[in-house]
Amino acid sequence: MCEANAYLKKKDAEEYVELLAFVDKVEPTEDGGLILESIFGERKMLKAKIKELQLVDHKILLEEI
Amino acid sequence: MCEANAYLKKKDAEEYVELLAFVDKVEPTEDGGLILESIFGERKMLKAKIKELQLVDHKILLEEI
Repeated sequence: MCEANAYLKKKDAEEYVELLAFVDKVEPTEDGGLILESIFGERKMLKAKIKELQLVDHKILLEEI
Repeated sequence: MCEANAYLKKKDAEEYVELLAFVDKVEPTEDGGLILESIFGERKMLKAKIKELQLVDHKILLEEI
């Protein structure tokens, strides 16, 4: 399986913290947010932007906006 | 390996066309563009936004802006 783990850096934080594991789908929304969905169907919606994808390392790096 | 293939839908197009295979890294730039890098080190820079990631299906869907 080629899912990835999503890590979020909050506005006031300096480090990324795991937000959701086994992410399959990521979809930016019209209002500047993101919807993440894991392979188990768990969904998270948040106000964040994609900072970087590192797919070989299974990482999705997000920053809170 | 868990790279993905990037597909681009141009402004005047209705369908996605493959842009770059074996993508490892994707990084949005300050000016609203994207930098893609494959596992072979091939890089592409373009004015596009991420429409959706479908990682289990190895797909990165991009739309030209």
